[in-house]
Amino acid sequence: MNISRPSLLVDREKVKRNIRRMAQKARASGVLFRPHFKTHQSEEVGKIYFNEGIRQITVSSVSMAQTFARWGWNDITIAFPLNLREMAAVNRLASQVDLHVLVENPFTAQILAEKATVRLGVWIKIDTGYHRVGLAPDDFQGIDTVLRWLGTSRFLHFDGFLTHAGHTYHARGREQVLEIMETALQRMTLLKQKYGRQYQDLQLSYGDTPSCSLAESCGGVDEIRPGNFVYYDIMQYHLGSCMLDDIAVAIACPVVAIYPERSEMVVYGGGVHLSKEFIAGDEGFSLYGYVVALEEDGHWQAPLAGAYVRSLSQEHGVIRLPQNALEKFRPGDLVGILPVHACLAADLLKNDTLFI
Amino acid sequence: MNISRPSLLVDREKVKRNIRRMAQKARASGVLFRPHFKTHQSEEVGKIYFNEGIRQITVSSVSMAQTFARWGWNDITIAFPLNLREMAAVNRLASQVDLHVLVENPFTAQILAEKATVRLGVWIKIDTGYHRVGLAPDDFQGIDTVLRWLGTSRFLHFDGFLTHAGHTYHARGREQVLEIMETALQRMTLLKQKYGRQYQDLQLSYGDTPSCSLAESCGGVDEIRPGNFVYYDIMQYHLGSCMLDDIAVAIACPVVAIYPERSEMVVYGGGVHLSKEFIAGDEGFSLYGYVVALEEDGHWQAPLAGAYVRSLSQEHGVIRLPQNALEKFRPGDLVGILPVHACLAADLLKNDTLFI
Repeated sequence: MNISRPSLLVDREKVKRNIRRMAQKARASGVLFRPHFKTHQSEEVGKIYFNEGIRQITVSSVSMAQTFARWGWNDITIAFPLNLREMAAVNRLASQVDLHVLVENPFTAQILAEKATVRLGVWIKIDTGYHRVGLAPDDFQGIDTVLRWLGTSRFLHFDGFLTHAGHTYHARGREQVLEIMETALQRMTLLKQKYGRQYQDLQLSYGDTPSCSLAESCGGVDEIRPGNFVYYDIMQYHLGSCMLDDIAVAIACPVVAIYPERSEMVVYGGGVHLSKEFIAGDEGFSLYGYVVALEEDGHWQAPLAGAYVRSLSQEHGVIRLPQNALEKFRPGDLVGILPVHACLAADLLKNDTLFI
Repeated sequence: MNISRPSLLVDREKVKRNIRRMAQKARASGVLFRPHFKTHQSEEVGKIYFNEGIRQITVSSVSMAQTFARWGWNDITIAFPLNLREMAAVNRLASQVDLHVLVENPFTAQILAEKATVRLGVWIKIDTGYHRVGLAPDDFQGIDTVLRWLGTSRFLHFDGFLTHAGHTYHARGREQVLEIMETALQRMTLLKQKYGRQYQDLQLSYGDTPSCSLAESCGGVDEIRPGNFVYYDIMQYHLGSCMLDDIAVAIACPVVAIYPERSEMVVYGGGVHLSKEFIAGDEGFSLYGYVVALEEDGHWQAPLAGAYVRSLSQEHGVIRLPQNALEKFRPGDLVGILPVHACLAADLLKNDTLFI
């Protein structure tokens, strides 16, 4: 392959397969599939989604929403607490596309109500246990106050309650993930029951790749917003959300040095390409990626047994691998790395992405 | 300040002060100061260096060398093992500027000798204990073989031996850093003695911010290549390389949510802005940055006592801070974060940088 710098290889067939599987599950569950586009941030992957029938999407910043609006998407949820410093951009964008934002505190709701000048869908973000952002599901006073503020503006439409059960990422195994999902869904359902009489079209929106991958069905809500599943990664594999063969991206890295005496090689490919996300093992052991041999056309098979990325600096990646695998590489060769966190690697390599 | 998204604030006066201090130390030590530009990758910071008399620079990739060549720099060392897949670009660039590359294995030296078409300076990279890349200082057979290959090309000029004592980053305190430096310098000096007769103009090049910051003098080599010191960061502060007041960058982040009940607030500013680099404490505690209040013009004073960034996701940062500090913030305010690793944050925010 004509690659000279660290580059993200995207396996188009695996992407399609991952999308189809999740779209099929959403259909079977009777829920809308509004995938999160923060994982790929790619016009090309967007087209694959479009061809699979997707029209509604999720992003995590105003600038990402602007980008996808420019690429023709016109129903976008910004699943990040509304940033009041971007109200002007939000109003501008909402005049062009069907835009939905997130609110999770009365103060922001008040300013939003004062400053909105165009029709805007508003979700109330609920914290179902992740404890990052959101109103507690039993904070009825908070929810009521937010709803009251939203009601003061003729531009704001209350879409419903949205949650991201991000604590599934800290779960150990399928059973724990599904327990978290069940609890989250129960809490959301109670909210729908409580507020459904007053807001008859209110919806429930649920996200995260681990639960949407592991659950047999995603019923019980109105829409799902997984994102990472389009590529998957080593973190998801360790969680049990995917098989190794589902991982749709590898970072192609030039080999620059070989050290038989310590069973290692060093590649051009570091923290500025892969991100410093890692999986912690016992006794300080850290894993920054699995290693694959790349075929001439950029495809790869199973990871090389016993090989892993053991450390990253800004531009260097240090790969440990068994002697018999090491012997096959020389400086100037390419090797593939399956990333620990595909979203961050894809963000870093936005301008160095190749579809295979 | 008119900032709506996570942005890198660069305190120009602190940058100047950091550069002057290191330049002064280099002069007093009688060594050439060839700062590493990977930390800032900024045309503007380059100009500050230029105004302080700097003409020789270090970078860590061919693309960075191309960028700085375009910005007028014409004596550049790429302090990264030569990537054979970029030989064409290296030859092109070497026809425009005085370019120096790194070699650390006979195989690469051979290909380089075959493919070089323009005059090129070549450093041999020595591993003085960091064990990332480089030939062992007593691997005379390896060094001799590399030198033999370099000698076969009329375009290649052997510059000397270069090392990066990156293991100073794992040291505990000043004394350990200086011990590492002393050992590294001894090993380098022995090489100069051994090869100096044959290569009379061979030089020694030494890098890394911890040792160059902590040593009284940087004598014993011909040039030093620290880079991080221009900004410094929390990692350097924890190592003892700098005072908090020397840290020249803060990431301005919009506050989006406040949680008095858990003494936390959440900002727009995550792993794609700060990088996931952290400092590990006891019992799984991780620190992703210190927190500063930003003045109207973007300057900041000492970090808020007891406040720190406790976790990062793609776009969210979770800050823990005492109630009395928390009370001063509302959604829509800006807050500053002193990064754990300035090089990675500066790389991520290259297009969102503001000089104050």
